[in-house]
Amino acid sequence: MNLKEYVSEVQDWPKKGVSFKDITTIMDNGEAYGYATDQIVEFAREKEVDIVVGPEARGFIIGCPVAYSMGIGFAPVRKAGKLPREVIEYEYDLEYGSNTLAMHKDAIKPGQRVLITDDLLATGGTIVATIKLVEALGGIVAGIAFLIELEYLGGRKLLEGYDAISLISYDS
Amino acid sequence: MNLKEYVSEVQDWPKKGVSFKDITTIMDNGEAYGYATDQIVEFAREKEVDIVVGPEARGFIIGCPVAYSMGIGFAPVRKAGKLPREVIEYEYDLEYGSNTLAMHKDAIKPGQRVLITDDLLATGGTIVATIKLVEALGGIVAGIAFLIELEYLGGRKLLEGYDAISLISYDS
Repeated sequence: MNLKEYVSEVQDWPKKGVSFKDITTIMDNGEAYGYATDQIVEFAREKEVDIVVGPEARGFIIGCPVAYSMGIGFAPVRKAGKLPREVIEYEYDLEYGSNTLAMHKDAIKPGQRVLITDDLLATGGTIVATIKLVEALGGIVAGIAFLIELEYLGGRKLLEGYDAISLISYDS
Repeated sequence: MNLKEYVSEVQDWPKKGVSFKDITTIMDNGEAYGYATDQIVEFAREKEVDIVVGPEARGFIIGCPVAYSMGIGFAPVRKAGKLPREVIEYEYDLEYGSNTLAMHKDAIKPGQRVLITDDLLATGGTIVATIKLVEALGGIVAGIAFLIELEYLGGRKLLEGYDAISLISYDS
């Protein structure tokens, strides 16, 4: 199955000059969504992961069915202020301003092997923040899986030393 | 399995006097998350649903593994401005101010039988907005599934005529 055929490219969104990759047309197709999930599950089984972690909200769409299929749990990474119990936070810079992501302190047990999932690898800010949070809790980032990678934005250079896959790549 | 044992009750969050029901301790436990998902899948199979719909972000955590397990698609309901293609929107009142939810116009095909999922039935505002969006697109709301229902907030009275289940209930 060629998953790229199910992506909707939206020109000039969210701003002029950007070609946005809309994954909702993968998700609302049971066959494509199932295929994408199974590909990530196969990767995660090799990595012997204990738990799946993903940043809101599209990281949930990718990671939750993977966790279910493997019979393991899912721990969310959320924007600051959304999680009710004791958290750790990580702040990172955006083009304008900054963003803070958080995880519950008990979401990962030290030594657990973690699969991180997200829909998109672009410049890599969100995924690096997620790695920092997982490792601060003592988790081992055993693998990282993206649905889409925008190779021309170079986010992968921030993931050296990690085992990361993407199911769909764009080189321009 | 008694799912209620896996909920973390957080006192005085997000404000004084509220006992928040934190579901992350269900989700990060593979056995509890799988059990909850399978219960909803069983309900959805009886309703012969074609697609799952859920509001961001916790509706994704509940609905995505259900869609995967059934081999069907998932269509997200998102806050205004988050979906890149042509949408329909529905605005509803909150205690202070209002909220607008949106779906892609092509997310549901007319006549499709839809399962709506969310983590929590409280006063029901979000779920009514989701029903309105699905029906405006010609979908049939075949069933609604919540992980938790706060019976004392009376949201269920807004769901008359719909077949709704909740896996965990609180009556006070």
